[in-house]
This record gives sequence, structure tokens and C-alpha cells, in this order.
Amino acid sequence: MLPSPLDSSTSYLSTSAIVALCVFFALLCACIIVGHLLEENRWANESITSLLLGLCSGVVVLLVTKFHSTEILIFNEDLFFLYLLPPIIFNAGFQVKKKQFFRNFTTILLFGVLGTVISFCLISLGAFLLFNTIGITNLDIKDHLAIGAILSATDSVCTLQVLSQDETPFLYSIVFGEGVVNDATSIVLFNSVQSLDFRSINAITVLKLLGTFLYLFCTSTALGIAVGLLSAYIIKTLYFGRHSTDREVALMMLMAYLSYMIAELLNLSGILTIFFCGIVMSHYTWHNVTESSRTTTKHAFATISFIAETFIFLYVGMDAFDIDKWKRSKASIGTSVAVSSTLIALVLIGRAAFVFPLANLANCTKTRESTKIEFRSQFIIWWAGLMRGAVTIALSYNQFSKSKMASAEDSLMITSTIILVLFSTVVFGSITKPLIKAVKLRHSKPSISDSTDIQEDLRLLFLESNCSINQSNNQAFHRQSSFRLMIRYPTTTVHYFWRKFDDKFMRPIFGGRGFVPVVPGSPPAEEDLS
Amino acid sequence: MLPSPLDSSTSYLSTSAIVALCVFFALLCACIIVGHLLEENRWANESITSLLLGLCSGVVVLLVTKFHSTEILIFNEDLFFLYLLPPIIFNAGFQVKKKQFFRNFTTILLFGVLGTVISFCLISLGAFLLFNTIGITNLDIKDHLAIGAILSATDSVCTLQVLSQDETPFLYSIVFGEGVVNDATSIVLFNSVQSLDFRSINAITVLKLLGTFLYLFCTSTALGIAVGLLSAYIIKTLYFGRHSTDREVALMMLMAYLSYMIAELLNLSGILTIFFCGIVMSHYTWHNVTESSRTTTKHAFATISFIAETFIFLYVGMDAFDIDKWKRSKASIGTSVAVSSTLIALVLIGRAAFVFPLANLANCTKTRESTKIEFRSQFIIWWAGLMRGAVTIALSYNQFSKSKMASAEDSLMITSTIILVLFSTVVFGSITKPLIKAVKLRHSKPSISDSTDIQEDLRLLFLESNCSINQSNNQAFHRQSSFRLMIRYPTTTVHYFWRKFDDKFMRPIFGGRGFVPVVPGSPPAEEDLS
Repeated sequence: MLPSPLDSSTSYLSTSAIVALCVFFALLCACIIVGHLLEENRWANESITSLLLGLCSGVVVLLVTKFHSTEILIFNEDLFFLYLLPPIIFNAGFQVKKKQFFRNFTTILLFGVLGTVISFCLISLGAFLLFNTIGITNLDIKDHLAIGAILSATDSVCTLQVLSQDETPFLYSIVFGEGVVNDATSIVLFNSVQSLDFRSINAITVLKLLGTFLYLFCTSTALGIAVGLLSAYIIKTLYFGRHSTDREVALMMLMAYLSYMIAELLNLSGILTIFFCGIVMSHYTWHNVTESSRTTTKHAFATISFIAETFIFLYVGMDAFDIDKWKRSKASIGTSVAVSSTLIALVLIGRAAFVFPLANLANCTKTRESTKIEFRSQFIIWWAGLMRGAVTIALSYNQFSKSKMASAEDSLMITSTIILVLFSTVVFGSITKPLIKAVKLRHSKPSISDSTDIQEDLRLLFLESNCSINQSNNQAFHRQSSFRLMIRYPTTTVHYFWRKFDDKFMRPIFGGRGFVPVVPGSPPAEEDLS
Repeated sequence: MLPSPLDSSTSYLSTSAIVALCVFFALLCACIIVGHLLEENRWANESITSLLLGLCSGVVVLLVTKFHSTEILIFNEDLFFLYLLPPIIFNAGFQVKKKQFFRNFTTILLFGVLGTVISFCLISLGAFLLFNTIGITNLDIKDHLAIGAILSATDSVCTLQVLSQDETPFLYSIVFGEGVVNDATSIVLFNSVQSLDFRSINAITVLKLLGTFLYLFCTSTALGIAVGLLSAYIIKTLYFGRHSTDREVALMMLMAYLSYMIAELLNLSGILTIFFCGIVMSHYTWHNVTESSRTTTKHAFATISFIAETFIFLYVGMDAFDIDKWKRSKASIGTSVAVSSTLIALVLIGRAAFVFPLANLANCTKTRESTKIEFRSQFIIWWAGLMRGAVTIALSYNQFSKSKMASAEDSLMITSTIILVLFSTVVFGSITKPLIKAVKLRHSKPSISDSTDIQEDLRLLFLESNCSINQSNNQAFHRQSSFRLMIRYPTTTVHYFWRKFDDKFMRPIFGGRGFVPVVPGSPPAEEDLS
């Protein structure tokens, strides 16, 4: 007689957890392989592949379990906010081209903060006006504002996969930067809406909302920078490379994650914190570690972020087949379609309403013709923010499924959000690649080389005046000229002074390129993150 | 009026989870930094540092919560077996020096399997006989056998931190290999004990136990090898490096983890599976990826394993202050000390009872004086397995805290196990470094260079006979000589034939060193894992 395998009851692990993990890991492998095979395909991309694979496996799970929803189908907010989102945002900060990002910082903030607020107001107002027409009357003012915040969270992964950081650096940095700032803004808006008392709305409520928002924005950023600098200081001072590369990598990972957790503990915006922590780490800490740690961190962070992203789309796809919430919504197909269409229309209009005006506003401040955002780029920026993703789903769950027995209206909002996410990712997403290629490729303009020229001019000018700085009349000229330049090219001038400050005070303390002793035996850095 | 931060109730994350994560990540950072600073210290090592830090923070948590146990103090088996153990074991397989490991394979199996079984029998018998004397009578036969399995799981991290892989490769590979095989064996034994019906013990029960054990061992190993080969084949055939390094790394991570999960799903031993998966991946898959993926995987896997290890010791330290289980055991200090001392004595004797006899048995099969295990090495092997760690804790929880209201006897077993783990890690662990240095350093013998000589002899001999293989009388000589050599140096000969098979059949299909086209632009491998 053959020995029988052990009973499942004797295992020290719960079977449902193992089954779920098995399914997810197998699907993740499948996503990576299929994504690789479809790399050259003009319609598909990684997000769509994962989403569709998730949908298919959702159907299979439903069939296997005979139309009973199981745990593996249900989207878990904690999992998303604690483990999946932080690595993605951290990696975004870590891999961002800092020069580009900060050069376009004002434009990015304009789109990411002011734009998101405009979109939030418009969508809230639109939902308030239109839902009554459709016949949804049970939502209160808080719900409508929450819908505005939920639908303002864009997902620009699709577009970023198509845009090339080298071909169109300006456009890439705008779309990328707006995407990150937008995530943070909409989450902060959502939290602000939830925390405020809306029984008596007046001017003070609006001011409070604004105040909370600014407070969260500044403190979160400061915390991220502080933790990043701390990590740089610790690794530089203690010189971890002497004993082990693994300790350096471990410390970087742990401190990045710690910054997110501290921010959440203090009720700040973890996303903003970990994003700036990533930027500071790539500017200082990354230069203080050994060569192999640099390669490892660069690729390991990217890999973890890649896995988390794939996992999220897979998860969103599977979650769509959690049959219970469709039952609970009790809505006819007509109502569902009406609500979803309304939401999609609001998203389209809400985004158009700020991208084109703000882009033209930004153009007004720019003197040179070549640095302006032309209409073609405006269109791409508009399109890049039409997709909705996991943040939308997560916030929607948070707002509309607080109790186990959610009302029909609440469930309807969740299912409509899911339809919106699926539709925008699959339909808008698959058009993105051919559309952007058609719009962009023929007339790419050399906006960036131009901007570099200005900077070179400035640098030469400053260097000249620095050389003769002892002469008092020259110094007066210098002051005068820098003031004039500051007015004319504010961002570039700020960047120049920042570099001076960085070289003189920051890098000697926190390390950075050129300020760290070369570790014996490690080859010089071949490629650079910044 | 300043805007107030948001209420904690509005956050989308549960506060207790955030607090726990914050505490753990901060402590992990502290462990890494303190561990780095104490690197040169002769008493301390990473495990002890983490354990003591865990104990201290356990006290702090108790004081803060006014002697109420909180969730963060309680050891979670699922967390341990699903997320912490797999990366450690995978990394062990991935970084093992394969040549050394397989050359000493028979000795490792002798210690790891037969030795663990002997220790299991002795400790079970000892517990059965001695506990009655102390006055613990409520345990049944299954509990006693479980205690044997629980206490047979050694933790050789301390010793491996002291031994150097380059100075004493033979000793290192024995201690390391035994550690991994021992973990697997004791878990398999534990599962076998739990799955069998002990109401009627007879010869068939023993045979069944043996059969289950062999079945688990073979199928688990086969599964690990299969998944490893599959990953090598996929990455070699699809040539992921063309599009992205991150996909390669992601696929390696995911498939390794998948192998563990599949094994657990099929009720096999996940530890054995993922260990062999790691070996196969480092032998084939690792050579199929781009240069930067190699650096990344090597360090990323080591880092994750390092973090998991540190986390476990921290966790075990904190768990000791979960005050509820001390209350539940209702034991006087005298009884606690008696039980713990008994367990420690059983561990010491149980290990001595198989290390010295088996080492001498192994010596009998060896012809050359220089390859024998001398008494000094036997002592180190004995000492290396005296520490008990997280596997012991996890299995003990599994056996003795099945219900919320465990009996006093069960709770006593858990607290005694904790005392054993703390005592062995801190006391035995801190003596390890000076002790081994004292025993080892003065008379290190060149056992490995000798063994290499034999292999060189063999290779030359075979090469000569291969050159003239067409001559029939030479072929007969070849066959005869290989048979003779097989008898004389079985391991080396097996290794030689394996290399021939590997070069002819395996590497052309699955890739491996020298069988993969050089990726353009990637520098040649500087260092090698094998």
C-alpha cells in the first residue's frame, strides 16, 4: 500500500490562503509571460493584459465555485494601501529624472493640484445635478464630494508605457509628475472630505478644506525629505559597505517603507511622503552605497513596483466578478448603464475643463515659443488622465462599503466605478498606443534641448560673474542680473541656486555624486539614475 | 485657527496594523544598525541582537499597554510559514556552493535525515520517561512524539555566521547542509506524526511513518527541480532580457515562491521544494539572464532573506512577553525550570547521541586520512545544532495552541519551548564565536584541496580513456576503471558523470554557464554563484 499524503487538516497553514496565493502567483507569472509576448503588439499593454487575465480567472473561479463568491475575489483595501501602493510610488520617486521633474515643477503642480481640484469640483457638481435626474436620490452631500475625489484619481500607467522618456522628455515628465501628484491630491482631498463636518456648509468649511489640504501637503513632503536625508546620513556615516551590501539594501528598503508608515500613523499622506523619500534617496543615499547595491536597488525596486502594478490590475479584474455586490445593487441594466455613462462623461469633461485652460495659462508665463505646450501635447496630457485604476477602486470601496449590508445605492456606486475602471482601462487604454503614435511621432519638437540652452546661458553668465566676485561693482551687477534672470526664467534660476546650495551644504553632509570615497574594488558607476 | 490633522477614524487603514508595522520596521532598522556596529564584537551576533531588541521592546510594549498583551506580541504561524521562511530557505539553496554541497551530500543526508530521526526518537523517549517524574501526566503519545519533532529542528544561523565558507569549506557545507535538511526533516516528521493514527501502535505504523517520510522527501525534491527547470526553460526560450531586466527578476521571484505554494497545496514539504528550486535556479536560470539581473537577484534574494531572518528573531523576542500564555500555564517557577532544564538536557544529549557515532561511521567509509572528520570538527558540528529557533516556536504553537483555551499542560509546553529558544540562542549563541575560534583556528586542515586533487586525478584519467574511446580494448578498460573508481570514490564519480550528463543534455535545453548567447552590451560575469 502506498503511503497516503497527509490530510490537509494537519497542515499548519490555512488551505484557503494557500489556494489564493497559488492562484495569484500562477496568474502573475502568466501575466508577465503574456505581457512579454505581446510587447510589440499595437493594441495591448501590460495593464490590459493583467486586467483581462483577471477577468477570465474571475469567470473560472465563479464557475468552479458554482456562482458563489469566494474570498480571493474580494478587493482588500489594507493589502492595497499597505503593501501594493507604497512600492509603486516609491519607485516612481526613485526612478524619476529629477532634473526634468523639478524644471517643470510649477507646471506639474498646476496640473496635479489645481487641475485635480477643478476636476473634483466639476465632477462633484455634475454628479449632484445629474444623479437626481437619473433617479438616485439617497446620496448626501458627502457622498457627492467623495465621488468627485474618487473619480479625480487618474491612472497614467498606460500612457507612460507608450511615451518615451528620451524622445519626449518634457511631455513624459509632465504626464508622469501629474500622475503622482494627482494620486496624492485626490487621496488627500478624499480624506479631507471624510474628516469634515458638512452639516453646516459655509466659507469656513471651504477654508478648512483648503487649510487641511495645504497642511497635509507640506508636512508629508517634509517628512519624506527628512527620512530620506536620515537614511543618507546613516549609510554615509556608518559606511555599511565595509561589512555587507545586503545591509545597505535592506536599510534603504526598510527606511522607505518606514517613512510611509510614519506618515500614515500621523495621518499624513503616505504617498507624498514616500514619493519624496524616493527622490531624496536617489539623489543622496543611492550614491553612498557600493556599486552592486546600486544595481540591486535600481532593479529590485523597479521589479517590486512592476509586480505590485501587475498584481493590482489582476486583482481589479478578478474583483469585478464578486457576484454579491452586483446582486446587492438591485439596479436594472438601464440604470447601471446610465450611471456609468454619466460617470464616464463627467471624467471626460472634468479633465478637459482644466487641461486646456491651464495649459494655455502656463503658456502665458513662458516667453519663448519653443517651451510652450502646443495643442498636440495638450491633447496627449488630456488623454493620459482619462484612465481610472486601482486608487479609484480602493477609495470607492472605502466610501461605499463601510458596513457589511451596504444600501442598494452604495452598491450601485461601487459597481458603476468598476464598470468605469474596466471600460476606461480596456477601451481607452487599447486606443492609447496607436493614438499617441499618430499624434506625436510626426512632429516631435525639440523643446528640451532648447530649455537646456537657456540653462547653459545662465550658468555661463553666473560663472563669469562669480569669477570676478570680489570686485564690488561686478557684485552689484551680479545681484541685479540674478534678480532679472529670476523674473525671466524663475524655474531655471531656482534650480541653479539649489545646485549651489546642494554642492556647498547638503552633499558634504549627506553624500551624493562625487562626494563619497570610492569603495575599493568597485567599478565606477556606469549609468546614473538622475 | 490651524487646521487640525484628520481623525484617525477616517483613515482607510486600521490603526493597529499601522502601529504594528511602524514598530516592526523601526525595530528592523535598529537591528540592522546595531548589528552593523557590533560586527566586530566577539560575543554578539545578529540573531542575539535581534532577540534582545525584541525582548526589550516586548517589555516596553507591556509597560505602555499596562500589562495587557497586544496583537503585535503574538507570534503568527501563517506569517512565518507563508512569508518569512520561504525566502530564507530559497536563498540558502540559491547561494549554496553546489560543488561542496553535492560532494558531501551523503554525509549531509546522514546527519540531516538519519541524525534528526535519531534525535527525534531519543527526545521523544526522554520526554516520555522524564515528564512523568516531574509530574506532567496529561500529555498523550502524540504530544510526546511532537515534542521530539519540535526539539529536533535546529537553528544553525549563529554558527554559520562564525564559520567561513572559504577557510573551512568542508565544515561549512556540512553544518549548512545539515541545517537545511534538518529543518525539512523535522517539519516532515512533525507532519507525519500529526497525520497518523496512534491508537494502535504496531510495526505497520512505524513503516507508514517511514513511507510517508520517503514519499514526502522524494516528491518535494522532484517538484522543486521541475519548477526550477521550467523557469530556466521559459527564460531561455523567451529571452526576456530583450525587453526588460525587471521581468526576468520578477519571474524568478514569483516562480520560486510558486514552487513553495504548490508544494504546500499538495501537502508536500515546501521547504525542500523551494530549497531545490533555488539550487536549480542558480545552476541554470541564473545563467540565462542579463548581467544586471544576476547582480540584482543575487543581492535581492540575500537581502530579503536577511530581513526575514532578523524579523523572525525580533518576533520571537517580542513574543516571549505575551503575558497571557504565562498566566495560562499556571506552573510554579520550579516546575517551569524543571521542564525547561529537562528539554535543554534532552537537546544536548539527543544531538551528541548521533553526531559522534555518525561522524565515526562516515569516517569508516573514507579511505584517505585527510578527508575524515576529526574530533574537533565533530565538536563544532555538535555545537552548531544546539541552538533552537523560529521553526521550533512555530511548530510548538501549532501543536499546543490549537484552541483558544489551551490546557495548562499545553501552555506550559509553549512557555518551556520559549525559554529553551531564548536560553539556547542567547547563552549558547554568544559563546559560539569565541568557542569556535578557539577550537578551529589553530589547526585548520586543508581537507578541501585534497578532495579537489582526487577529482583532478579522476578527470585526467577519464579524459585519457575518452581520447582513445574508439579502440575497443581501451573501452573495456574504461568501463572497468570507472566501475573500480565508482567503488573507491563514489561521490566524486557520481559528480563526474553528472557533469557529463549536464553538459550533453541538460545545459543545451535549460541553459547554464557557457550555454547562453552573450547579451550585447552586458559585461562578462565577474563572479559566479556556483
